[in-house]
Amino acid sequence: MVKVGIVGYGVIGQRLADGVALQKDMELVGVADVAPTLAVRALKEKGMPYKFYNALSANRMLFEAAGIPVAGSLEELVEEADIILDATSAGVGEKNRELYARYNKKAVFQGGEKNRVADVFFHGYANYEKGLGKQFLKLTSCNTTGLIRTVDCLDRKFGIKKVAITIVRRVADPGDYHRGLTNALQIEPAPNHQAVDLMTIMPHVEATGILIHTPVTHGHIITIVATPKNKITVEEALLAFHEHDRIRVVRIADGFLGNASLFRYARDLGNPRGDMYEVALWEESVVMSGDDIMYAINIPQEAVTIPETIDAIRAAMEMTSDQRKAVETTNNYLGLGKWKQ
Amino acid sequence: MVKVGIVGYGVIGQRLADGVALQKDMELVGVADVAPTLAVRALKEKGMPYKFYNALSANRMLFEAAGIPVAGSLEELVEEADIILDATSAGVGEKNRELYARYNKKAVFQGGEKNRVADVFFHGYANYEKGLGKQFLKLTSCNTTGLIRTVDCLDRKFGIKKVAITIVRRVADPGDYHRGLTNALQIEPAPNHQAVDLMTIMPHVEATGILIHTPVTHGHIITIVATPKNKITVEEALLAFHEHDRIRVVRIADGFLGNASLFRYARDLGNPRGDMYEVALWEESVVMSGDDIMYAINIPQEAVTIPETIDAIRAAMEMTSDQRKAVETTNNYLGLGKWKQ
Amino acid sequence: MVKVGIVGYGVIGQRLADGVALQKDMELVGVADVAPTLAVRALKEKGMPYKFYNALSANRMLFEAAGIPVAGSLEELVEEADIILDATSAGVGEKNRELYARYNKKAVFQGGEKNRVADVFFHGYANYEKGLGKQFLKLTSCNTTGLIRTVDCLDRKFGIKKVAITIVRRVADPGDYHRGLTNALQIEPAPNHQAVDLMTIMPHVEATGILIHTPVTHGHIITIVATPKNKITVEEALLAFHEHDRIRVVRIADGFLGNASLFRYARDLGNPRGDMYEVALWEESVVMSGDDIMYAINIPQEAVTIPETIDAIRAAMEMTSDQRKAVETTNNYLGLGKWKQ
Amino acid sequence: MVKVGIVGYGVIGQRLADGVALQKDMELVGVADVAPTLAVRALKEKGMPYKFYNALSANRMLFEAAGIPVAGSLEELVEEADIILDATSAGVGEKNRELYARYNKKAVFQGGEKNRVADVFFHGYANYEKGLGKQFLKLTSCNTTGLIRTVDCLDRKFGIKKVAITIVRRVADPGDYHRGLTNALQIEPAPNHQAVDLMTIMPHVEATGILIHTPVTHGHIITIVATPKNKITVEEALLAFHEHDRIRVVRIADGFLGNASLFRYARDLGNPRGDMYEVALWEESVVMSGDDIMYAINIPQEAVTIPETIDAIRAAMEMTSDQRKAVETTNNYLGLGKWKQ
Repeated sequence: MVKVGIVGYGVIGQRLADGVALQKDMELVGVADVAPTLAVRALKEKGMPYKFYNALSANRMLFEAAGIPVAGSLEELVEEADIILDATSAGVGEKNRELYARYNKKAVFQGGEKNRVADVFFHGYANYEKGLGKQFLKLTSCNTTGLIRTVDCLDRKFGIKKVAITIVRRVADPGDYHRGLTNALQIEPAPNHQAVDLMTIMPHVEATGILIHTPVTHGHIITIVATPKNKITVEEALLAFHEHDRIRVVRIADGFLGNASLFRYARDLGNPRGDMYEVALWEESVVMSGDDIMYAINIPQEAVTIPETIDAIRAAMEMTSDQRKAVETTNNYLGLGKWKQ
Repeated sequence: MVKVGIVGYGVIGQRLADGVALQKDMELVGVADVAPTLAVRALKEKGMPYKFYNALSANRMLFEAAGIPVAGSLEELVEEADIILDATSAGVGEKNRELYARYNKKAVFQGGEKNRVADVFFHGYANYEKGLGKQFLKLTSCNTTGLIRTVDCLDRKFGIKKVAITIVRRVADPGDYHRGLTNALQIEPAPNHQAVDLMTIMPHVEATGILIHTPVTHGHIITIVATPKNKITVEEALLAFHEHDRIRVVRIADGFLGNASLFRYARDLGNPRGDMYEVALWEESVVMSGDDIMYAINIPQEAVTIPETIDAIRAAMEMTSDQRKAVETTNNYLGLGKWKQ
Repeated sequence: MVKVGIVGYGVIGQRLADGVALQKDMELVGVADVAPTLAVRALKEKGMPYKFYNALSANRMLFEAAGIPVAGSLEELVEEADIILDATSAGVGEKNRELYARYNKKAVFQGGEKNRVADVFFHGYANYEKGLGKQFLKLTSCNTTGLIRTVDCLDRKFGIKKVAITIVRRVADPGDYHRGLTNALQIEPAPNHQAVDLMTIMPHVEATGILIHTPVTHGHIITIVATPKNKITVEEALLAFHEHDRIRVVRIADGFLGNASLFRYARDLGNPRGDMYEVALWEESVVMSGDDIMYAINIPQEAVTIPETIDAIRAAMEMTSDQRKAVETTNNYLGLGKWKQ
Repeated sequence: MVKVGIVGYGVIGQRLADGVALQKDMELVGVADVAPTLAVRALKEKGMPYKFYNALSANRMLFEAAGIPVAGSLEELVEEADIILDATSAGVGEKNRELYARYNKKAVFQGGEKNRVADVFFHGYANYEKGLGKQFLKLTSCNTTGLIRTVDCLDRKFGIKKVAITIVRRVADPGDYHRGLTNALQIEPAPNHQAVDLMTIMPHVEATGILIHTPVTHGHIITIVATPKNKITVEEALLAFHEHDRIRVVRIADGFLGNASLFRYARDLGNPRGDMYEVALWEESVVMSGDDIMYAINIPQEAVTIPETIDAIRAAMEMTSDQRKAVETTNNYLGLGKWKQ
């Protein structure tokens, strides 16, 4: 049983905790954060299913006032764990790295950190082998994670030479008050970092793209124009996507009109928090542009990186050196792909 | 065991089904709808925890194509049930009424229907006794339901002469694509229907108000200026609100900054669909205006009417004639008030 | 002096009237609508700079009650004009066509009408010659109009084989209450109609694309991946765009962060209604994807079709058979391209 | 001719410049800002109708690169002016105060500054006399300015004892990218500062209230529950509002459905930037709550304070000691009240 600690109990940290708790070959030691946020208060109201560690000793009184039982300090959590999933705010992970190094523990950082924080920039499908036995891994960001799933899926079957992507992204998470956008679209200079990141993970693919922020909270939509090495048809591409356990092919005709339909559907499925681990891919979006193939996917930003982060534990801890087996184990414990039954 | 059927499996119908399924003195016969909507597809993906009845025989092929197992027709559901909770679109309930009457069954309609559809316009706290043994009841709408909880709460302790309310309402539910508002506030002529409805349920209170639509999806905020019969203080009012099992007193200082914080908190609590049955009342909003008291509440529109609808079953079926016992039983099975422990 | 009548005085009709009034070789006979809308009330408050014709005689009393001076009936406007710009709601133009035919008058319809309404589907740059002397012309829609400006601009210099476009579109106009979207992105089945329309106007270009609705009101953003016949560089493309009088090249670095910056800038310029006739093209968005070129433009949906609609008058009335001279005259009277001085 | 300088050429500064330029008894010396923002670039594209002063000498190269002609330094502007309208970001005005004091010039600050910056907290209607001859005045904020217009209007006729207000406010200006809110309502602790400010300006009125942020950009809506000293009817109140030159009484029935309708109407009127100086008051919102009167107004946040700021010049410079004459002169030059003709 690999012992896992979670540092940072926000949007991502909470979901990592729940995801790790489902892995029968892992043990969740506990979670840590610096203040009695709503997430920590919810943990308490639920009866403390996970042990909580105080990551900022100066805030001891705040936790007491809020009635949060504290199991120990951040150092104690790090000491007890074999590997840390760091889900702190961007930049904090880099500082925490010293602590993990001091205790000689492994760690997986999220996409907000700089690449230099880690030994390898990791994706469970596209470069699992590179993560084997490494001490510090950094996950791709939410968009890049989902994007690579689909590009890697096509690349394995047909070979992909280049992609030109347009990211239509949400600007805040549900419940965020510290950021937002009102009645405005915002464009970033090209190429966007997701295209650059894709090339880092998949160096044989040329990628560029444009990113546009939109005032919504539930999920990004990405359009991809991919140039294959070998001839491809819409039907062949759809077949490949259907077989992937982290890609859910959906139809507008069935009522999946956009990101909000997917969120409602996940809530109605009874998924915790209305989350989805899988990216959705719209069947009616897949078209040819000459010999290129174009398609659109939805990225559920809150939960999409959870499976690949758990893959990263398997790689770092060398639980298996077989990429296929690693992702299948993760998928199995998370229930991924069950919708095809 | 009272046998309950749900007609209309949309936003409200799904939540009624889940709420009834939690009542140990009720049995959920099944749910009915007219088409394989995403809600019905989600029911199938979950493995059909509830029996599904086809309410539009012409759509039989559509259900087959979607692989939805159908237990019977709408008539069969009505025949098997003792009481129907009608959660169809506004206006449909009135047509269904004939069917319920033909089978001599009781029914509870939602707030979108006209008052004439029912023998009594019902609220579990404010006029439970009026619903006793009635055949057709109509629930108050989401805003009115939550509003009355708080006004009734003050009225029982201090007496309330009049209220002037401002409703800042969401314009669509999460996942809606058939309605919405973009970068606009919309005002309705005064008085708003919620004020009129409050006076119907609580005829000894004078009420008026103004309603403003806003482009958000998670919950309404209502401000209330209430004129008490007897002198009241902020502390006394807060104490009364704290004691109520369907009112959750929250603090901005703890991170409850608005409706979106409440939705995130409910998701993080693990509540199914991120729902909340209780209205939230902000501690820092309670102020005196001369001898009047002013305060603000949040209405989680998707789930707020579920408890009072279940109360309506208790009244209509005369499961108890004691209002206090009725709501306590409902609250107990739904887990309401547990946050105070 | 060509006599022009405007039928439909809404978002587009008002702007057509203002645009025609600026053409020194045209005379605006008047404008017509069916009810005393806010646009018509604003016309009155401004002192009736244009004559107003009542397009629905049954509403005579409404106009009287609102104090709107009425110059005559729709038939009278049609009789007095040489050509009608029909800016009514989609579908109404097709009905009005009979009236225009009866009086043997020419007419230009907006993009919302079906193609069958017109003898030619028209764009001032891409197929001016096809409109010469025709009785009924239909303009391309707002997105297609702006898109074609840029594709035609590249096509004339470098030749364009195919384009794959992603349209991130606004879902309502400022002030709309009859449509909208709240916290949701909506995807349309591919290919979108703008790609199909582009191929109708420019049959030598292959086009496809995906359209996503977003909850904003000021302008669409389109990304284009274009495959040129001849080698092209970012610098050459930018030079071509800079020379075009209906394309404004802007920089994120200067503060043009998105559609909302452009709207604010147009307001601050003192443009009537804060309108822009030109599409904006972001300098920092232009990148190569292999041999393809990718770039992003902004479509100010309320005013973008005005110049091409005025071009259509020049073509239909055969004011000149020289496309270059036609658009230069329109541009000159509208002040287009002056920002380059 | 009073010589006026504007420091800060953003949303408010631009509108102050245009408003002052319309006053025949004032001379606009020029405007100053620290960087070549879009507003300054628009000034250049319009051909520099106002002289521009560089308020940050370190940025000289930036202005040169942008081709902005610079008339002088901030100090030179202050030296040439008799009075400065400071429309800088909150907090900057307090620093600038020293400069104005050094040159012994008068100044009017905007509502974002702390009260201590000024000798008097000013409103053109409610306390004009207090501003007479003062060196430093601070304007009420946009909401307070519009709110006081209507409360003062009732107070003069009927006497007002207390008000309880609900402010439904926009969270950003059109074109803002540095702040916003997405799919969320945010509540502030009661009482809101506007209620406190109202009591500072009108100390005989008791005021409290609750403020809710909403994700829109065009205008706030405020509901007011006012307790009059003397009996009042809806008709009497409406009559008083109709007579006020800075209050526009509008009707939902005419199409004024909310803040977005008012913005569209102002654009269609041809008002520069689509601005409105007047608050709108909905006829159908005026209702009695017992002996209290309740009504709703719209605050066009970008332009509403311009008239009262110009009144402040008249008071500070003692152009007239007669409040009625002061506001009438301002109104006349700005064209306020003309809609009643």
